[in-house]
Amino acid sequence: MKIALYQNSPVFGEIEQNIKEVSVAVKNEDFDILVLPELFATGYQFKNRDEALSLADKAGSGITFERIQQLAAQKDALIIYGFLEKKGKKLFNSAMAVDPSGNSFLYQKTHLFDTEKNIFNPGETGFFVFDYKEAKIGMMICFDWRYPESARKLALLGAQIICHPSNLVLSTCPDAMITRALENMVFTVTSDRVGLENRCGQPLKFTGKSRIISPQGKILAELGDIETGFIATEINPTDADNKAVTPNNHLFDDRRTEFY
Amino acid sequence: MKIALYQNSPVFGEIEQNIKEVSVAVKNEDFDILVLPELFATGYQFKNRDEALSLADKAGSGITFERIQQLAAQKDALIIYGFLEKKGKKLFNSAMAVDPSGNSFLYQKTHLFDTEKNIFNPGETGFFVFDYKEAKIGMMICFDWRYPESARKLALLGAQIICHPSNLVLSTCPDAMITRALENMVFTVTSDRVGLENRCGQPLKFTGKSRIISPQGKILAELGDIETGFIATEINPTDADNKAVTPNNHLFDDRRTEFY
Repeated sequence: MKIALYQNSPVFGEIEQNIKEVSVAVKNEDFDILVLPELFATGYQFKNRDEALSLADKAGSGITFERIQQLAAQKDALIIYGFLEKKGKKLFNSAMAVDPSGNSFLYQKTHLFDTEKNIFNPGETGFFVFDYKEAKIGMMICFDWRYPESARKLALLGAQIICHPSNLVLSTCPDAMITRALENMVFTVTSDRVGLENRCGQPLKFTGKSRIISPQGKILAELGDIETGFIATEINPTDADNKAVTPNNHLFDDRRTEFY
Repeated sequence: MKIALYQNSPVFGEIEQNIKEVSVAVKNEDFDILVLPELFATGYQFKNRDEALSLADKAGSGITFERIQQLAAQKDALIIYGFLEKKGKKLFNSAMAVDPSGNSFLYQKTHLFDTEKNIFNPGETGFFVFDYKEAKIGMMICFDWRYPESARKLALLGAQIICHPSNLVLSTCPDAMITRALENMVFTVTSDRVGLENRCGQPLKFTGKSRIISPQGKILAELGDIETGFIATEINPTDADNKAVTPNNHLFDDRRTEFY
């Protein structure tokens, strides 16, 4: 199975242009699962909740969903992407997984970062795992990485691949994801963006360094901190089912939950 | 407050000599808390349970405890060290914290590594926090690092400094400890050993790289992978009480335990 990501550099608010950037970039690429960044089509730094609302879609509708659904069908792949979700009066920082048959799975960011709290509601879906082809997939978004409980919960639910759409501004995440992979013995795919946004008098530089990491904590593919780009790697998802740290240690059976 | 560690290279079974190595090395050093490696006085690779039993002490007695108690009083410091504990028919891979007044706190390793399972019983103390001077201290031993629950539990109990006696053979731990510090915003002190043991036909090379890390994941002091040595750094333990990841994020208040 080939897992991939595209590290983008969206122009704020230019949804069609940002979707096109991705579609063109992956047109001649081959993959089974493609992970795109958090809020990949809208940009990140909203001036206020009203501005965000004007760029939001209901889950399962809107131009972003439709175009990604078409792309998933064309490429015969699962595509996971971050988007701005409106639901009644609520706004979520969400990720959608869309498969070639049109099935979709929605995750809403659990741990909001900094001023996101002024824009978004805390996610209500919680963490879950779904099947795609022979793989078991879990999703978390950006700052969820800081909480070991996020990846742990997904791994305990059986996730083999943790897909992690991000807009990172803390430089510590890329290396921390090695620990997240190791401590759970799962594949991780952190799809980040690059570039700068300066819409609220507080410039944000996104850190890039998107990475695909193995259950042994090995970086299988990565990008730098400036360029956009596509990376992919061939994996066997069931490698993540082997939880033998040593011949005598099963990562999960050795947990001693009576002490946590 | 000055926290310190000594990275040793014990000779297997030479308890008095190994204690002397440490005593001489720290004689002219200044510190409030000193962390020594796992099983620092006995060595690590026991041929079998009987051999281990012959080198074990009851908690709070034996030459290792007595000498460390003397050293703690002389240096007016808390000393934490790993030792081989016998208790009835049980053997534990334990750590003892001894303060200058003779108070002591016992921790038994929760997560046993590889063939340790043939020698030791799994720890029964669980994780706890105690006070020393103005600091709140927690202990975990070596492979406990692999389980995010270990450091998390200690931090949630209020630990400001996680003292981590180790005999590392996996190269991934030193960098993972940066994540452990960051995800809990605590100081960590990993006191490892160097050298080689080859007593069971399976040579073990210990990785060294002892480290003191700040709540922001900064390496405050570290050693290499070959040399023995003493390192120390001045810290303010209450820095670990500031859990503000951003002005809008409190690391612990933002946990969403309904989803874990």
